[in-house]
Amino acid sequence: MEITSVNNPLIKETVKLYQKKRRDELNQFIVEGDHLYLEAKKRGLVKQVFTTDTSLVGDDVVHVSSNVLEKLTMTKSPQGIVAVCEKPAQVDPTSKVLMLEKVQDPGNLGTLMRSALAFGFKTIVLDRCVDVYNDKVLRATQGAVFELNIIEQNILEFMEEQPMYYVYGTSLQGEPMESMKQFDNIALILGNEGSGITTRVLNLTDQNITIKISEIESLNVAVAGSILMHHLAK
Amino acid sequence: MEITSVNNPLIKETVKLYQKKRRDELNQFIVEGDHLYLEAKKRGLVKQVFTTDTSLVGDDVVHVSSNVLEKLTMTKSPQGIVAVCEKPAQVDPTSKVLMLEKVQDPGNLGTLMRSALAFGFKTIVLDRCVDVYNDKVLRATQGAVFELNIIEQNILEFMEEQPMYYVYGTSLQGEPMESMKQFDNIALILGNEGSGITTRVLNLTDQNITIKISEIESLNVAVAGSILMHHLAK
Repeated sequence: MEITSVNNPLIKETVKLYQKKRRDELNQFIVEGDHLYLEAKKRGLVKQVFTTDTSLVGDDVVHVSSNVLEKLTMTKSPQGIVAVCEKPAQVDPTSKVLMLEKVQDPGNLGTLMRSALAFGFKTIVLDRCVDVYNDKVLRATQGAVFELNIIEQNILEFMEEQPMYYVYGTSLQGEPMESMKQFDNIALILGNEGSGITTRVLNLTDQNITIKISEIESLNVAVAGSILMHHLAK
Repeated sequence: MEITSVNNPLIKETVKLYQKKRRDELNQFIVEGDHLYLEAKKRGLVKQVFTTDTSLVGDDVVHVSSNVLEKLTMTKSPQGIVAVCEKPAQVDPTSKVLMLEKVQDPGNLGTLMRSALAFGFKTIVLDRCVDVYNDKVLRATQGAVFELNIIEQNILEFMEEQPMYYVYGTSLQGEPMESMKQFDNIALILGNEGSGITTRVLNLTDQNITIKISEIESLNVAVAGSILMHHLAK
């Protein structure tokens, strides 16, 4: 059987997962395209698949017409597959943690997650950032979302609960990054694109650092975070 | 006098500058908002200003109604000012050059330009990239576009004309970045988001390098370029 009506109740319910509120209620989210679908499937996170590809079969597979698939996607040329996934489970924080405060641009968040995974920062604490299960963020992470331990929590709360971390903040007034030392447990904080890390958080870090630049006021947050994670990965 | 009609011939002509073809013909482009306008003005590049702000006066200032301003902008909440600028003049290449081959994402190009300026790569060679005077690129550069020496040229041609550069390519199969050495004249090449640098170019570099990463296939191109430029800026 194929669903051909965009008014089908299952389709209407599924589309609601593009709203953060709904994603939080059900602890589910939508991924689009083969790559993200296969990454989710590998980890047993796929709950339901919608596809125009009739050769794909299984208990969790629902065949849909192309107009229905279009309704289920946010991209202009949908790739033929959409999957509803469970959010990955949260585990204990790893030895290197990236903490982000109010990062608002989906591309920046996705890029930071991709770099975090590349440089061994396997836990990411998100404090009032753009939703990580937003479709634009998911595309920018290129699957890194499934490999990271994602914790949505206030940074100050996390620091209080996990006092074993040596916490680096980032600030234009900080010390040069070359003064950073390695510790068994390191947490690195990056802040909002426009305003940086809030003073309250900066005051409670162990050290605040900066990357030496000339001519411009600041680096893009994903660039700054990646340079620092790369430095600490060594 | 205020222009209140979106059908005014001057407005219709100006809007055409959102097309690359028109920008190339006239050697002009449009910037939006106070920040980019002031950066352009500082350098004497502003040819004409369109604004809803009647307190702004001058030979080059044209007052427009808000519907006309909206017509002249690409953003949803226009900032009240739009300026037609001359493209900055091209000068001789500087000692550090960033060369980009087929970089297609406006955000990536803008971020790379911002980092290039921050790390002293003051000449940027663009080979079949997204147009640097595209409105999204201009926003992402945050004004760096006015400080850089921008050369639109085929990379192989540039290398032939400017043989004094030690040219680093980037490739997943390259040598570790720690093996990079400083030279008086350095050029660094980054390639397309999906396919990297073409083999033809890779074969003609002095050395191809890579950044050690784990778990993911590759870094975002703006991140990779920024890490390498930061390393070479020291």
